[in-house]
Amino acid sequence: MHQDRIRCPQLRDRIVDAETAAAHIKDGMTVGMSGFTKAGEAKAVPLALAKRAKTDPLKITLITGASLGHHMDQQLTEAGVLARRMPFQADPALRKAINRGDVMFIDQHLSETVEQLRAEQIHSVDVAIIEATAITENGGIVPTTSVGNSASFSILAEKVIIELNLSADPLWEGVHDIFIPTRRPARTPIPLVATDSRIGMPYIPIPPEKIVGIVLTNEPDSYSEILPPDEGTKAISDHLIRFFLSEVKKGHLTNELLPLQAGIGTIANSVMHGLIDSPFYNLKMYSEVLQDSTIQLFDSGKLLFASAAAVTLSEPVHKAFMENFETYRSKIVLRPQEVSNHPEVVRRLGIIGINTALEFDIYGNVNSTHVGGTHMMNGIGGSGDFARNGYLSIFVTKSLAKDGAISSVVPMVSHVDHTEHDVDILVTDQGLADLRGLAPRERAQTIIANCVHPDYREALLDYHERAKARGGHTPHILEEAVSWHTAFRDHKDMRKAFS
Amino acid sequence: MHQDRIRCPQLRDRIVDAETAAAHIKDGMTVGMSGFTKAGEAKAVPLALAKRAKTDPLKITLITGASLGHHMDQQLTEAGVLARRMPFQADPALRKAINRGDVMFIDQHLSETVEQLRAEQIHSVDVAIIEATAITENGGIVPTTSVGNSASFSILAEKVIIELNLSADPLWEGVHDIFIPTRRPARTPIPLVATDSRIGMPYIPIPPEKIVGIVLTNEPDSYSEILPPDEGTKAISDHLIRFFLSEVKKGHLTNELLPLQAGIGTIANSVMHGLIDSPFYNLKMYSEVLQDSTIQLFDSGKLLFASAAAVTLSEPVHKAFMENFETYRSKIVLRPQEVSNHPEVVRRLGIIGINTALEFDIYGNVNSTHVGGTHMMNGIGGSGDFARNGYLSIFVTKSLAKDGAISSVVPMVSHVDHTEHDVDILVTDQGLADLRGLAPRERAQTIIANCVHPDYREALLDYHERAKARGGHTPHILEEAVSWHTAFRDHKDMRKAFS
Repeated sequence: MHQDRIRCPQLRDRIVDAETAAAHIKDGMTVGMSGFTKAGEAKAVPLALAKRAKTDPLKITLITGASLGHHMDQQLTEAGVLARRMPFQADPALRKAINRGDVMFIDQHLSETVEQLRAEQIHSVDVAIIEATAITENGGIVPTTSVGNSASFSILAEKVIIELNLSADPLWEGVHDIFIPTRRPARTPIPLVATDSRIGMPYIPIPPEKIVGIVLTNEPDSYSEILPPDEGTKAISDHLIRFFLSEVKKGHLTNELLPLQAGIGTIANSVMHGLIDSPFYNLKMYSEVLQDSTIQLFDSGKLLFASAAAVTLSEPVHKAFMENFETYRSKIVLRPQEVSNHPEVVRRLGIIGINTALEFDIYGNVNSTHVGGTHMMNGIGGSGDFARNGYLSIFVTKSLAKDGAISSVVPMVSHVDHTEHDVDILVTDQGLADLRGLAPRERAQTIIANCVHPDYREALLDYHERAKARGGHTPHILEEAVSWHTAFRDHKDMRKAFS
Repeated sequence: MHQDRIRCPQLRDRIVDAETAAAHIKDGMTVGMSGFTKAGEAKAVPLALAKRAKTDPLKITLITGASLGHHMDQQLTEAGVLARRMPFQADPALRKAINRGDVMFIDQHLSETVEQLRAEQIHSVDVAIIEATAITENGGIVPTTSVGNSASFSILAEKVIIELNLSADPLWEGVHDIFIPTRRPARTPIPLVATDSRIGMPYIPIPPEKIVGIVLTNEPDSYSEILPPDEGTKAISDHLIRFFLSEVKKGHLTNELLPLQAGIGTIANSVMHGLIDSPFYNLKMYSEVLQDSTIQLFDSGKLLFASAAAVTLSEPVHKAFMENFETYRSKIVLRPQEVSNHPEVVRRLGIIGINTALEFDIYGNVNSTHVGGTHMMNGIGGSGDFARNGYLSIFVTKSLAKDGAISSVVPMVSHVDHTEHDVDILVTDQGLADLRGLAPRERAQTIIANCVHPDYREALLDYHERAKARGGHTPHILEEAVSWHTAFRDHKDMRKAFS
């Protein structure tokens, strides 16, 4: 059966076991691996590396598309294999190692990693490990459930190891659109002009000689662990739909809206889910990851087409999706993340970007990554690619966390990932703040009036009033600005800062 | 003579005085005015407005390209005309009014203002006031020394007032390249593929009916007040040239480098000036403003071509430039700022962006705008457009300010304009930190070792060591993080925070 999937005859004798393939990876090397938000990561060779490290210690730099499934980052971390990791992760064990300073984590805009690799601004990839559905007649790699950075890793690496996943539906072939921007300074425009534009090839073109081993696997992706919509996410979604309706009424948008991007995770997924019961139609997505809500929007007839870098679904939605894959596959395309997130394309298409904030401040600066200003959660991911360049940059979060001990709206964020220049709309369960065209003092007024939980509203108003008395374009009381964070750190309750 | 410059016959009877033209502007209106970093601003009508406001108070929203010459913002501020101002300014009187909260200032990426106007995301322009060299046969506007946002203001405004500046050399005609991106979601790629690409028209095309008045003026731009290179800027320039040389040696760049962008002001200008004595050649600029150093680089034979949104020169350089305008004009092009700063183009061309920081922190976050975290200096300008999307994002500043009472490198910046994700290289007179591919803890090590003045180095090292002991991906001691700023605020010396 696997012979049908290796259509390039000269590669049929390259099948090896994972340990043999892993032997190509030496201590100190940089490894580029497929995998984007739990979709399509290499599943066998990294485990062989982790196993080998127990008796033969080695340290590598691991670059992926984004986060990995099957607790891969945990196993590599526990085996001590990771010296450096980029550009994103979402694993509790790795997170701890990063925050201890044991693993050097380089947190990047997802569109930029391979741009830097191509320009040799960061260490080049020695070995690429890429999960594939098939290998074409000429040695091209057909990815599985994600493209991520797989194409550029394969093209730029000296050696490529393929993990041929026999559990991947052969119908994945044809879903991918592999386009790699030409080198600078002679780069030409990326010809993508609509979410459903196909501008590349259905496989990753590399010389077959570079493929040093093919490992057979048979394990599907792990499932996403997304939570269902709840009262809070429903409120956020309702506020946003009301806003879109008012924009339609003003003639700024039509009922088809503009191409939608939604960040990974429960809140953004729930917000998209809310569109099922909205009056909008003929929707399109131009996003990073297709989540449960994408499939549900297809099923509701609301969504026409979806472009992304990966598909990551929960178990029940995945089951239904694969059972009807034939009908879905003509409505989706998977692209390299430097295309799905490319500033040029995001700006051109006029994306409505919806991303999740950890916290934001009264002036609309957003922290997406650092708990308490110091401890990495997951990473900035693609939020910056979309927030900076989109038509509308929307950030969503619940107004409270930790049973009310944390307000997601604070006097000053403890870490900035998105500056006020890049934030148009903020939404919590409390309401929506439209910040377009407002100066900082006006932004504060709107944010405090609309987004803050009542338990914290007066304290924020009081802070802003006292700060304004000191003057400034962006008034602050510096010695108090992060006192809510230190109150939570020291007393497990932000409210201790003012009561 | 002015009849030759109004080549559209039907417009010849529209000449009015400034007061009559200004009467089109009513209380509460939004006015779009030409002018970009002291180049090509309207010079008569805004003064007529300021005069009128003395007896007939009015408040407007004023949108320009960037800052204005001839103390225009000061006069409008003092007359109480400005309710709102965007997207940039550099005037001491206006700055004070902004920091008092009297004028609402919306500080924007310079590529974004007209994008928001076109999409009606901010209040539309009622009247545009545009300085012109000439009006073409079909009513097209030929700008003077800047394009800035003039094209979109003229196209989008209901009424257009022309200030025909008879002192402008008629040879400015042909220097401009007016290209306006098409509307979204049907936008096509911007066809610009090289710094010297011409993709538009030499004038701003509008229906002549929209021109409600033509005011004759005869006053040249005010001159830039740039300071000559000094020991500090020379050191910065030397460090940067050494870095470029090492990149050439590694094969990452050629001796022609990549298209250069330099922020406005003394430091960036001095850094560019340093290239005159470098081994680099056939240089090209793709920038916002052509400053003295651009002309000096032309004269030295180092520079082949320069693209920008405006030309702003000191008196002596301006004199020499205009005397030989015929030879320079074929080597420059002036574009709308949404093209000069467009993320799509900046990313495609692979720009090396050199911008000035007010301060940066040990992790490489940059504050470009807020003194003490609260008080606006000028605005973010185009630095974000280039820093986010360029091939290399370089920020420069002197290591000390206020005779050593301020360190430009601090534990945590008091305001973030550019996050660590967007900052590749930091340079001070002390040295250069190459942050590419480094995790925050490594960034701190490199920055402290290379960029900090010796008076502050040990204190920063100590801060970083103590912060690391508390853990985190980006270690900080929150209650101490901005203590250097409060020490300067309260004791006029940052060193009081640790000694």
